[in-house]
Amino acid sequence: MAGRTGVWLVGARGSLAVTAIAGAAAVRAGLVEPIGLVGETPALAAAGLPPLSDLVFGGHDVADTPLTKRAERLVAAGVLPAALPAAVAADLAAAEAEIRPGAHRDDGHPQAGTVERLCADLVAFRTRNELDRVVVINVSSTEPVTAPRPEHADRAALDKGLLSTTDLLPASSLYAYAAFTAGCPFVDFTPSTGARLPALHALALRERLPYAGSDGKTGETLVKSALAPMFAARALRVLSWSGTNLLGGGDGATLADPRAAASKTAAKQRGLGEMLGYPVDGQTHIDYVADLGDWKTAWDHVTFAGFLGVRMSLQFTWQGCDSALAAPLVLDLARLTARAHRAGLVGPLGALAFFFKDPVGSTEHRIASQYDQLCAWAAALP
Amino acid sequence: MAGRTGVWLVGARGSLAVTAIAGAAAVRAGLVEPIGLVGETPALAAAGLPPLSDLVFGGHDVADTPLTKRAERLVAAGVLPAALPAAVAADLAAAEAEIRPGAHRDDGHPQAGTVERLCADLVAFRTRNELDRVVVINVSSTEPVTAPRPEHADRAALDKGLLSTTDLLPASSLYAYAAFTAGCPFVDFTPSTGARLPALHALALRERLPYAGSDGKTGETLVKSALAPMFAARALRVLSWSGTNLLGGGDGATLADPRAAASKTAAKQRGLGEMLGYPVDGQTHIDYVADLGDWKTAWDHVTFAGFLGVRMSLQFTWQGCDSALAAPLVLDLARLTARAHRAGLVGPLGALAFFFKDPVGSTEHRIASQYDQLCAWAAALP
Amino acid sequence: MAGRTGVWLVGARGSLAVTAIAGAAAVRAGLVEPIGLVGETPALAAAGLPPLSDLVFGGHDVADTPLTKRAERLVAAGVLPAALPAAVAADLAAAEAEIRPGAHRDDGHPQAGTVERLCADLVAFRTRNELDRVVVINVSSTEPVTAPRPEHADRAALDKGLLSTTDLLPASSLYAYAAFTAGCPFVDFTPSTGARLPALHALALRERLPYAGSDGKTGETLVKSALAPMFAARALRVLSWSGTNLLGGGDGATLADPRAAASKTAAKQRGLGEMLGYPVDGQTHIDYVADLGDWKTAWDHVTFAGFLGVRMSLQFTWQGCDSALAAPLVLDLARLTARAHRAGLVGPLGALAFFFKDPVGSTEHRIASQYDQLCAWAAALP
Amino acid sequence: MAGRTGVWLVGARGSLAVTAIAGAAAVRAGLVEPIGLVGETPALAAAGLPPLSDLVFGGHDVADTPLTKRAERLVAAGVLPAALPAAVAADLAAAEAEIRPGAHRDDGHPQAGTVERLCADLVAFRTRNELDRVVVINVSSTEPVTAPRPEHADRAALDKGLLSTTDLLPASSLYAYAAFTAGCPFVDFTPSTGARLPALHALALRERLPYAGSDGKTGETLVKSALAPMFAARALRVLSWSGTNLLGGGDGATLADPRAAASKTAAKQRGLGEMLGYPVDGQTHIDYVADLGDWKTAWDHVTFAGFLGVRMSLQFTWQGCDSALAAPLVLDLARLTARAHRAGLVGPLGALAFFFKDPVGSTEHRIASQYDQLCAWAAALP
Repeated sequence: MAGRTGVWLVGARGSLAVTAIAGAAAVRAGLVEPIGLVGETPALAAAGLPPLSDLVFGGHDVADTPLTKRAERLVAAGVLPAALPAAVAADLAAAEAEIRPGAHRDDGHPQAGTVERLCADLVAFRTRNELDRVVVINVSSTEPVTAPRPEHADRAALDKGLLSTTDLLPASSLYAYAAFTAGCPFVDFTPSTGARLPALHALALRERLPYAGSDGKTGETLVKSALAPMFAARALRVLSWSGTNLLGGGDGATLADPRAAASKTAAKQRGLGEMLGYPVDGQTHIDYVADLGDWKTAWDHVTFAGFLGVRMSLQFTWQGCDSALAAPLVLDLARLTARAHRAGLVGPLGALAFFFKDPVGSTEHRIASQYDQLCAWAAALP
Repeated sequence: MAGRTGVWLVGARGSLAVTAIAGAAAVRAGLVEPIGLVGETPALAAAGLPPLSDLVFGGHDVADTPLTKRAERLVAAGVLPAALPAAVAADLAAAEAEIRPGAHRDDGHPQAGTVERLCADLVAFRTRNELDRVVVINVSSTEPVTAPRPEHADRAALDKGLLSTTDLLPASSLYAYAAFTAGCPFVDFTPSTGARLPALHALALRERLPYAGSDGKTGETLVKSALAPMFAARALRVLSWSGTNLLGGGDGATLADPRAAASKTAAKQRGLGEMLGYPVDGQTHIDYVADLGDWKTAWDHVTFAGFLGVRMSLQFTWQGCDSALAAPLVLDLARLTARAHRAGLVGPLGALAFFFKDPVGSTEHRIASQYDQLCAWAAALP
Repeated sequence: MAGRTGVWLVGARGSLAVTAIAGAAAVRAGLVEPIGLVGETPALAAAGLPPLSDLVFGGHDVADTPLTKRAERLVAAGVLPAALPAAVAADLAAAEAEIRPGAHRDDGHPQAGTVERLCADLVAFRTRNELDRVVVINVSSTEPVTAPRPEHADRAALDKGLLSTTDLLPASSLYAYAAFTAGCPFVDFTPSTGARLPALHALALRERLPYAGSDGKTGETLVKSALAPMFAARALRVLSWSGTNLLGGGDGATLADPRAAASKTAAKQRGLGEMLGYPVDGQTHIDYVADLGDWKTAWDHVTFAGFLGVRMSLQFTWQGCDSALAAPLVLDLARLTARAHRAGLVGPLGALAFFFKDPVGSTEHRIASQYDQLCAWAAALP
Repeated sequence: MAGRTGVWLVGARGSLAVTAIAGAAAVRAGLVEPIGLVGETPALAAAGLPPLSDLVFGGHDVADTPLTKRAERLVAAGVLPAALPAAVAADLAAAEAEIRPGAHRDDGHPQAGTVERLCADLVAFRTRNELDRVVVINVSSTEPVTAPRPEHADRAALDKGLLSTTDLLPASSLYAYAAFTAGCPFVDFTPSTGARLPALHALALRERLPYAGSDGKTGETLVKSALAPMFAARALRVLSWSGTNLLGGGDGATLADPRAAASKTAAKQRGLGEMLGYPVDGQTHIDYVADLGDWKTAWDHVTFAGFLGVRMSLQFTWQGCDSALAAPLVLDLARLTARAHRAGLVGPLGALAFFFKDPVGSTEHRIASQYDQLCAWAAALP
């Protein structure tokens, strides 16, 4: 328990990763209050999470923007306070030294080699820093939806396929594979495939590792998961739920690709029916609006029937900063997953559904119930 | 258990009462689905509530608008389906026959006589209809805030004062006094004083009666009680919560009186601090907009700080029909309170906080927790 | 000037047509105030428009829903007052008697025959009712975008092609062709092609007829055309303008077909750049939400830069009843176009841009300027 | 025309004044685009306005916050770009050197002496800087509503009263009096009394000076003045118009004083009836929300009747930065009023109504018409 915990961020040079690294340093140094960090609230005080001061950051990235450069951009965008990059320069430099080149789905040679390289990076990070454990968290851009292949369902076939194929797994799954091989828990904060393939699930079980995901719940879906149960508890009939999300920044541009949007939109819609118990009419749009930068605006319009069928409506507009909403969840997930690993938990961590749009190991989408489950689970950890 | 239950509505000729009476008849007759009735959901199916078909309606009112006339107005306002008044004419006539003149705070003679008359009406209603029990529910217009008097705190002093004073108690408390004297549970669906005086609480205990209240949670506050816990669970710091409520109809006109608005606004703000754990900046306005009729529109604007203090915002607009939102809650409360009475419960029913802005016997304002408590309580009733 | 004016509605059995016919009768009979009718305001009092009482209605439709049936549905949807259908039964019956079968694009035989039949219906209507003139107005459902063909650009080639081809023109253009051949002005209230083909423009000129269009401006675009000039006048730089339109009813279902939506969306976006003088980022969505019926809700989100580049935003939500917004414009257009015909005007009526999203004969989209032009034009009519 | 123009800001150390001074310097230096400056648009290019580079700033203030300090705070609030204060340090220093102590309504001695002192400051500023003219603009905090006194209506009585009374005029009117006495045009950008007293009007006429006001139109009222004419032109009947304004910053705190709010609210409501031609139901609230800083959020809710009386609604939310919205208008007003002075215009400048909520010399509130009038007036200046 006295040792340190590694947090390995896939997409370590992106806005989210840098906000998490710089923010953890700022909270640790007492420069800012721990707003947004569930792990710092009284409810989880007795859960035995590794303290923020014991986290060591590293990661993979296919880009090479220096962390300090990214941090400056985040200041200009109003995400980081102006004085922060200088105040946490040492922490950024330490993380910078622990970033290694990432991988694309198809780098032109068999993927087995890529997995080996990524795995070696993780093992070296753990050894070099004398870490008790390393949690790998995917915070990179959303991938297009992955077409299924037979090898995805069978571990032996997958291993064999990786020896000769250059594009069998999407990048997110390569990272999950490498994490499990290196004995590291894996968290997918994006809607990408990650560990969600039968062959990778089997690998996690074999290595006795926990994993969590998918798709951090930071905005529209968060509000949905608070409001939909209200309609259900009051026996009000939701007739339609329509949404429009305006996003700037890197994630917006990625999602402007309709193939990537499809995976994110599907995750958003899935939970609504599960919370209400019936399918609901309505579409969800994701638009890229470059001018919005790191900010996103979501408008949702809900029509519902009350007593005697009278039609009524609810609208909401959410205006949030994506990186600032997501970064504390990444830190919470790193600490909770590390704690689960220490407790010997294996397989999907359904109790972390609180953090995700599309939780693995859980069909609970109601935020209040998820919160109750999280607190009860954390209190009961051995 | 085979007997029938009386529902005595104070304000029986108002929009809310008539929507409840006509709506209960419509659901009973299978003309409409039981939307909005929590008592008809699976979660409460085993609670042993008196069935809708066993409810008998009566009430007090100071007005003399016939129920059929009010029902027609509700059709014109889009609250009741056009065909409904004719379809439930017999039910309206039956209720009409059971309405007696109400009371004002000061009718010019000592209030003891008024209480006696109101009490006699209740006893006669119960006897005449061979009812197992009668639940009295105040659904009349909101009163101005009541100035405290020493007699309010002492049952003996109160009894003595009523013999000689014409305005010692507000009307809502006269009805509560009469209910308790007649052996009837009392529910206050309004923010008026009702049973919330030490002397009346003592009377309820002496008569071994339960009571519930106050101020039905039907719109802005309902949404607040779903959203505020979301901010709390995620450790987001709410910086301000401002609201504007536009109301037409009778309630809007009453609340345009700033003295009445004060009591309603206070109830709205009280819960927010309790849900978040700290006081929050911001005002809540209630405006009368005649043109809105039975409809109300609420706009709430919330600012909050996320990780590293980044400021974000959430707005919502709720557009609802007041009578259609409140009427099913009145029916639920009648049945649940009757059930509590049968179970022998005494004093404030905190487990019914789910229905109220300002719950007696509870400091829980979070809708999800209130719902869990309600279901657990109902399941455990003897 | 003492004679009567025919109003021939293409899509005469639809919600919009029936609202226009019933509404004209209601205003004529003094049952309702002339709200929404620009032609009844002081600004146009001296323009010499044919009075509402001199309008005679007829039309084409491919459906056979009786007008009284449609009127009942409009009552149920809250568009028509409950008592109206009975009060204007005679007017509905008179119009019913003047409705003839419409045409599809491809009825399986050469289109020349279809045009001839439609034209004969118009001439017979004018003769039978001893009308001074007949204005043909397309209020039918939006067509898919029409692929151009060489014959569309040349009148002689078009005439020749119609003799042998079954799908050369879209239905809206068949009606325009028939109107011009019968000596009738044509108005396109939809975004369909209608008269907007060089060959049909030439035909209108040859027959010395005016025409107007396209796409009635009734909601989101109306508000846009009031707000965009505000930004321009104040030298504020609009950075993005995003919109989501939720529509029920027939039009919503039609527009759910992406091919039809494309034509409507393009019309919506075209004007914004013209009002601001530069292209603006942002998408406009049109979603079909069946539950909304005749109602539509539009949410627009605008980001703009102010002094020193400070970023700000404006959002609006418009909740309107489509038929009630459009019907008075149809009546205004019928009267203004009849008046233009009487004055001998020929070709596109740019002065009617006030009514349209995508005005023929004008590039003015700013509502205030359009209104000034309309009033000046009407005052100057010979 | 070759000379320079003085801009004397009452409230020179406030956010608005500093944004105007720093912003003018930034535009002049080519550091930012002239967004928000109507005077820099093609429409006014030929009006002969004094160029931005010929403006010289000074002013009065009762506070002593250095301009550079205020500029830093504006950077922190996101109003000024981070690099701006350094880039325009010389301009801020030049203005700082020209700021003199302001006046309160009651400084404990007869007001004649105060007026004399303020007037001397203006004359010295003009002489010292060899200015062609000086425009005095009140950008200080809103005053409470002023109770009328007989002396306000009569110039001779006023002059006499000032010799012996310490609180006869509110501060804003002392500044107007001083301006007129010094031969300077006066602009009131606030809702305070300023020059709007018969005795001061008479003084302006005697001195052959123009004046303008009142209450800069920068947010909710600006949008109102674009939307209300749309309803009027379309003959739609506005039934209610309700508004809530959430303000932080100095102005918000001032307006939290209900007496000051009253004057601002009245100005907001006055124009609506004039634009529509009938009085409209609804209230406008101004709430102080400290957390909002220099930003303001306005929500307006409009109900209106369309054809056949069908009820519909429009809502908008405006989120703007007060200083950034107002500062360019102050610069425009300085230049336009200087130009009017050069042209020899006398009395209230109704053609500047475009800039004001409560324009002197005009009853035109419609933004498009105001803009047309402004452009026509500027083009016709001798």
